[in-house]
Amino acid sequence: MDTATSGGLFDRALKRLLEAWRDVAGGAEDGDIAAQMRDCLEAKGGEVSARARSARLAKAYLAADADGKAEFLRILASFDSDPAAVAKAVAAFQAAGDDAAAAARARMQLRRALEAPRARLVTQFTSIPEGVKFVVELRAALLQLAKKDPALAALEADMRALLAAWFDVGFLELRRIDWHSPANLLEKLVGYEAVHEIRGWRDLKNRLDSDRRCYAFFHPRMPDEPLIFVEIALVKGLSGDVRALLDEKAPVQDPAAADTAIFYSISNCQQGLAGISFGNFLIKRVVGELSSEFRNLKAFATLSPIPGFRRWLDSVAVDEALLSPDEKASLAAALGADESDVQPVARLLAKRSWHRDAAVAEAAKPILTRLCARYLVAENAEGRAGEAKRARDPVAHFHLTNGAQAERLNWLADRSEKGQRESLGLMVNYLYDLDAIEANHEAYVGQGKRAASTTLKRLARGWA
Amino acid sequence: MDTATSGGLFDRALKRLLEAWRDVAGGAEDGDIAAQMRDCLEAKGGEVSARARSARLAKAYLAADADGKAEFLRILASFDSDPAAVAKAVAAFQAAGDDAAAAARARMQLRRALEAPRARLVTQFTSIPEGVKFVVELRAALLQLAKKDPALAALEADMRALLAAWFDVGFLELRRIDWHSPANLLEKLVGYEAVHEIRGWRDLKNRLDSDRRCYAFFHPRMPDEPLIFVEIALVKGLSGDVRALLDEKAPVQDPAAADTAIFYSISNCQQGLAGISFGNFLIKRVVGELSSEFRNLKAFATLSPIPGFRRWLDSVAVDEALLSPDEKASLAAALGADESDVQPVARLLAKRSWHRDAAVAEAAKPILTRLCARYLVAENAEGRAGEAKRARDPVAHFHLTNGAQAERLNWLADRSEKGQRESLGLMVNYLYDLDAIEANHEAYVGQGKRAASTTLKRLARGWA
Amino acid sequence: MDTATSGGLFDRALKRLLEAWRDVAGGAEDGDIAAQMRDCLEAKGGEVSARARSARLAKAYLAADADGKAEFLRILASFDSDPAAVAKAVAAFQAAGDDAAAAARARMQLRRALEAPRARLVTQFTSIPEGVKFVVELRAALLQLAKKDPALAALEADMRALLAAWFDVGFLELRRIDWHSPANLLEKLVGYEAVHEIRGWRDLKNRLDSDRRCYAFFHPRMPDEPLIFVEIALVKGLSGDVRALLDEKAPVQDPAAADTAIFYSISNCQQGLAGISFGNFLIKRVVGELSSEFRNLKAFATLSPIPGFRRWLDSVAVDEALLSPDEKASLAAALGADESDVQPVARLLAKRSWHRDAAVAEAAKPILTRLCARYLVAENAEGRAGEAKRARDPVAHFHLTNGAQAERLNWLADRSEKGQRESLGLMVNYLYDLDAIEANHEAYVGQGKRAASTTLKRLARGWA
Amino acid sequence: MDTATSGGLFDRALKRLLEAWRDVAGGAEDGDIAAQMRDCLEAKGGEVSARARSARLAKAYLAADADGKAEFLRILASFDSDPAAVAKAVAAFQAAGDDAAAAARARMQLRRALEAPRARLVTQFTSIPEGVKFVVELRAALLQLAKKDPALAALEADMRALLAAWFDVGFLELRRIDWHSPANLLEKLVGYEAVHEIRGWRDLKNRLDSDRRCYAFFHPRMPDEPLIFVEIALVKGLSGDVRALLDEKAPVQDPAAADTAIFYSISNCQQGLAGISFGNFLIKRVVGELSSEFRNLKAFATLSPIPGFRRWLDSVAVDEALLSPDEKASLAAALGADESDVQPVARLLAKRSWHRDAAVAEAAKPILTRLCARYLVAENAEGRAGEAKRARDPVAHFHLTNGAQAERLNWLADRSEKGQRESLGLMVNYLYDLDAIEANHEAYVGQGKRAASTTLKRLARGWA
Repeated sequence: MDTATSGGLFDRALKRLLEAWRDVAGGAEDGDIAAQMRDCLEAKGGEVSARARSARLAKAYLAADADGKAEFLRILASFDSDPAAVAKAVAAFQAAGDDAAAAARARMQLRRALEAPRARLVTQFTSIPEGVKFVVELRAALLQLAKKDPALAALEADMRALLAAWFDVGFLELRRIDWHSPANLLEKLVGYEAVHEIRGWRDLKNRLDSDRRCYAFFHPRMPDEPLIFVEIALVKGLSGDVRALLDEKAPVQDPAAADTAIFYSISNCQQGLAGISFGNFLIKRVVGELSSEFRNLKAFATLSPIPGFRRWLDSVAVDEALLSPDEKASLAAALGADESDVQPVARLLAKRSWHRDAAVAEAAKPILTRLCARYLVAENAEGRAGEAKRARDPVAHFHLTNGAQAERLNWLADRSEKGQRESLGLMVNYLYDLDAIEANHEAYVGQGKRAASTTLKRLARGWA
Repeated sequence: MDTATSGGLFDRALKRLLEAWRDVAGGAEDGDIAAQMRDCLEAKGGEVSARARSARLAKAYLAADADGKAEFLRILASFDSDPAAVAKAVAAFQAAGDDAAAAARARMQLRRALEAPRARLVTQFTSIPEGVKFVVELRAALLQLAKKDPALAALEADMRALLAAWFDVGFLELRRIDWHSPANLLEKLVGYEAVHEIRGWRDLKNRLDSDRRCYAFFHPRMPDEPLIFVEIALVKGLSGDVRALLDEKAPVQDPAAADTAIFYSISNCQQGLAGISFGNFLIKRVVGELSSEFRNLKAFATLSPIPGFRRWLDSVAVDEALLSPDEKASLAAALGADESDVQPVARLLAKRSWHRDAAVAEAAKPILTRLCARYLVAENAEGRAGEAKRARDPVAHFHLTNGAQAERLNWLADRSEKGQRESLGLMVNYLYDLDAIEANHEAYVGQGKRAASTTLKRLARGWA
Repeated sequence: MDTATSGGLFDRALKRLLEAWRDVAGGAEDGDIAAQMRDCLEAKGGEVSARARSARLAKAYLAADADGKAEFLRILASFDSDPAAVAKAVAAFQAAGDDAAAAARARMQLRRALEAPRARLVTQFTSIPEGVKFVVELRAALLQLAKKDPALAALEADMRALLAAWFDVGFLELRRIDWHSPANLLEKLVGYEAVHEIRGWRDLKNRLDSDRRCYAFFHPRMPDEPLIFVEIALVKGLSGDVRALLDEKAPVQDPAAADTAIFYSISNCQQGLAGISFGNFLIKRVVGELSSEFRNLKAFATLSPIPGFRRWLDSVAVDEALLSPDEKASLAAALGADESDVQPVARLLAKRSWHRDAAVAEAAKPILTRLCARYLVAENAEGRAGEAKRARDPVAHFHLTNGAQAERLNWLADRSEKGQRESLGLMVNYLYDLDAIEANHEAYVGQGKRAASTTLKRLARGWA
Repeated sequence: MDTATSGGLFDRALKRLLEAWRDVAGGAEDGDIAAQMRDCLEAKGGEVSARARSARLAKAYLAADADGKAEFLRILASFDSDPAAVAKAVAAFQAAGDDAAAAARARMQLRRALEAPRARLVTQFTSIPEGVKFVVELRAALLQLAKKDPALAALEADMRALLAAWFDVGFLELRRIDWHSPANLLEKLVGYEAVHEIRGWRDLKNRLDSDRRCYAFFHPRMPDEPLIFVEIALVKGLSGDVRALLDEKAPVQDPAAADTAIFYSISNCQQGLAGISFGNFLIKRVVGELSSEFRNLKAFATLSPIPGFRRWLDSVAVDEALLSPDEKASLAAALGADESDVQPVARLLAKRSWHRDAAVAEAAKPILTRLCARYLVAENAEGRAGEAKRARDPVAHFHLTNGAQAERLNWLADRSEKGQRESLGLMVNYLYDLDAIEANHEAYVGQGKRAASTTLKRLARGWA
């Protein structure tokens, strides 16, 4: 155990943790968390007892306050690999030199020496009822703390590796969610929906109607907790207005007559699984499910926000560099400003609810649409040297990486407050063309080439 | 990729593998296994495509003959970590010196550098239908091959680590198996039973009757494959004769009236999971299940073989060192040998079916029982220096490690050919006393002290 | 087919039905409903085809308007037993005279002759998806219509007999409903709750919390439709205030610590099953379930409305006959009326929200409680001569028939508008004492003796 | 209660039943079965108690010996409808005369009066665990006894009506049975198979392989008991040899490549459901299932025995009336008999294993095939006047009624002892052509016209 950390064992935070522990453990046992963890590791009383002990550790953690929790994680992190064993393995590795067999053996030895005991401790939590969920939540807490506390970063890396192994997509179950699903699960969707807020049970029921589909990935040991879910509308033609999709009073369509599946919302649910990606797999599995259920479906596309659009506009000198004189003039006029106004876009963005003024919206439409096309198709995120260029917009990057193509921009497609604030009300369809996905992916990941419709490309190439 | 190994790419074995591959892949793709694996690793065409490609790799493996399979594994093993990256991380580790934070970072970096790409390849197989089973079978094959081929040992170690993570007991399901279970599962029990052969459906049905219980662990992604199973009889008093338990014509008892649960058979099912232990957890989970179902149960015990007894007898000079003159004389007399015969035990063991001769059995009983007690309680396995002493008998070692106590020896308890050959017909009850398990485990694992009944201890201390 | 009824075949209503039929049948077949029914009965094209035809009949019914539906039922009713066959069987019955064997045969023949073909037609509907539900709804419609149309009464009687056979309690499944139940089922509870309105999902969730239980009977062929359900709170002591039970903000109790199970709501769900009783069985099955789940439960009781109390008060000359002079005076004073007011109760009941006036409520409490005790314990429903007396209150009659005992009256226990209007805010606990249920039932059903607590009996015997 | 029957209450048989009853009832209650039944009917102690009491009655029945069981059924049968009530209702019926409304009311009243209390008693058994199965077994016993005891015939008729209502096909579940089905269910198939004996688990597994299908109807309250099951082979072309289908060593075919589904065995399982037919529905439901699973299937046909063929041959003067001189001569020659032998068929049938003699079989083939075609297509069962003619062979009658067509005769298709004894080794394919089923059924049921292939018809029209 690292002495730097164990110095913290006597501070205020730990005292409260120990109190929580003693409450749970009933005072009958030594309340020293570190000692308990050591007993777990050494499987004192046998492995089965060690598992029982880890249940008590988990209870102590859950009963602790924020400081106590942080201290718990620091103690856990301190169970790192044995420095002497690592040093010895390193020496053996260097001694091996060019001897391939000896080098292979040395790498094995080094791997073993580097296995941190804390990973075993974390694994033991899986035996507790809801233990897998506990570990996911442990990492969620850790992700917050590790930013400020480098001592926790290594623990976080170990937990990420464990969770990546446990939550490999091969172990997940795809389940359809509908109005026959358990209420406690549906209630969670309301909480986890991250794109278009679910406003109540009626809204939710509309999204689960017979012309809709909702699918989620689940882990067999967290059967009540969706990991990620996607909402789909079965429609005719490409949807360009999310309001129509979310309208509770719109009549239910015949799904068998639909020719297009619109993926209009996809939300990750577990913060503790950040960095372990499921979205790619989910979309493609669902495309497969829908294809075999509905033979008439010809297109699979999203209706997606462009969450970085406004932020980008704010970060560049739009008016100065990206607008033509004519655009400036027309927008200024619509805004009732002087023709010589040099910052009409800035003026527009400063105006609340400008989109409700028909004349202003009319004037803004060609300008913002063009800028948005450019943002999606041509603007790059800052990258590391030597890497292929990637789209600046994170949602665009996700779908382009999946091999989708940016297909069509939709004006005033999302009138929600959030939609206005982030995307200026624009939404974009990304098209998943099964025959093109692999090539699109390769071109984007390998050379940074983005798949986009001719219309979008032409639009992006407009003025400037 | 290791050049030493890739040299093998052109040999006869590979050619056959490549042929199998081309059959499966339809000739449309490059049949080079190594190239395919590389594409999988680089996720060419996206991660989802990589998973599809791994399905084709698995098919190629399954279609290959023994040589082709070995070659496949050698190619897979060759995807080791990048030597340059490892060397660089080692250098950073050494540079860190006493700087704790730098050392922690260096260990993280080193861990990452040591992650072998082949482990990712193996993980991708989980997405295939029955993919987890495929990986388990891959390791079973590897265990055979790695003995002779050091190049495969490192791959085996990686796969063991992966399987240990996936098959952690926290992820397993305990299921009861009875006559209502699916026939295809029951058929597998017949094949996997390793202690007392199941002679047919009637024998099996008897073992699943209302006064019996059978439990197994399952992995959620291998739902039709038991990992380990245990068979239990609910009886009155400690059973001392396995023939009675396996008698298909014996009347069914009222399980609610039973006071003792006899665990009379426990079998591991998956060779590919060798070294990942479930038995300890299974027994204790089942004790818990039975306790809550049957309030009348007072004792939980095994009726176990002593598989190393005969082997041990053969390895020591029994007659010379372990027999009293009186014992020698009485045994010799019963065997019709000269009183001065100096090797009556050797003579006995050379005789076929000696136990069917009542007089011989009568004379042998006190001697063999005493020797067996000594074998169980006092004989040590060869161990490494500094380790606690451990029982020579492997089954004894398993139950003692679990915290059980050697309780009673049973004469002529297993008359099967195998029982005679290995255990000389003796069987032993190990008692699982829940209140004593932890202390027993600690005493055995820590100081090599074995829990045994007074009778057994006294017996073991007999002559010599 | 009865000619009187078939005359209706050509009227306006039938025309619309026939139109609906033709729409469904696609014009390809003869749209004559009666002819189609006849084909069903004669199993034209085989029995399997007859079943398919009945699906089309059901669709025609569902597509018809109210008049068309009534006409459909009248046509269905017209498929009565053959008068000639009945007459012949009657003659044989009379001819049998004292010959026991001949009489038995004649009864069999008469039973067969009386089987109405319409019952077979109704049975055929069970093969349709949701066909059992269809029949239940058919009877619900019929119950309305049969009141005015004697021609339908016989059909209603036949359907009641069929439904009683199909929905015998032996065929029903008891299921627990909780927050993990499907949303579409929970949504139905909101609609079916007949005692204390469920005000939304939050209210519902509170009623399904860990200190609550909800059970329902289901038919295997109507798995999404509860037949009857009961809501239970697990509490300490007898609950006397339904507001406390329905308070969404009240803390959740530990159900294991509860000593009393309060059945506070029981609702029948299917109008089409009117007259087929499940409540008795449901309560007793649930008492059994709860007893085995919670060993600490000592009492099982309801908290029930007294829906006929106010109606009874209105129907008798309370003030004249049932009040003592002192009661009159005290109530009049509290109401601020002249002391000589001769109808203080009438004045009270005419006053809106009198229970919110503390002084009035205080004065009314002993009077109304006493009157209510009398109503429950002593007032009789009008009965047929020779029958045992039965309680005037329908809910009281239900629980007394079940063998429960009227235990305690609770003042201001239900402050809802409905509670005030029907029960004047009073509620009563009926106690289900398993040891007394049979005797209570016998005494009530046999001799009209009602089980009541000493307190209630004494109260009922008060003034007058 | 009928006094004639109650006289039997004191005989020897009842005494034993009463003893059984007292054993079960623990002596604490009056052991009089009739009194207990009366209490059940009067719901003494409430309906729930009545159900509990019926459980004890069932136990008493099960514990009784054959005489006791018969007595139990006679007592049960004695709870007939009240003669006075029936007489009164008959009088009302006759008084109604031409008044349609009064007649309808009278029929209702008469139906009610005729309802036998024993039917209610039988219904109460459904609440017992496995109660539905108990009633089915009760009727099975009754069917045996009613033949000799007219007092039981009316009870049998009541039970048949109840079971027909409960087991209406609309309430049944179609389930596929395969090697993943529970062993206890598969074990039952072995017992119930009535056409081609299942010789063990290996034979059974072969019949459940991937190129086979097995479907059964189940009642939701008898989930472990098949009511009827059918075995199907998915093959190419019409199968003509059942030995090939039952060959355990034959390679498994690819079911997706099959163009024909052969129904080679259909067995009713429950004697107590005799007279309630499921086969027609089962075959057509299964045809539907298979059609949607396998798009390539073009034909659905049986491979059926002709169980009455030999019996018919024995009953007619074959040699005299049905053989041509040439046939006689050729058969006599093959049998090594004198050419002038006038009874070669009789001689053939008297010979054991004649079909193993190639020359004899060769000579017999055209003759027996022709006679069999005639038997199937032209021979009539004895019928009642005015009814359509029906096929003499019961299996033929079943399939013709279902609308199938007799398609092809197969020589030496069933070499089993039973096949030889009943069908002389011949089997026939009945073809289920979905487009022709309705018309075939109507033609057969209405006018007695049998659907047969041209070949079969021509064959039947051969000599004589």
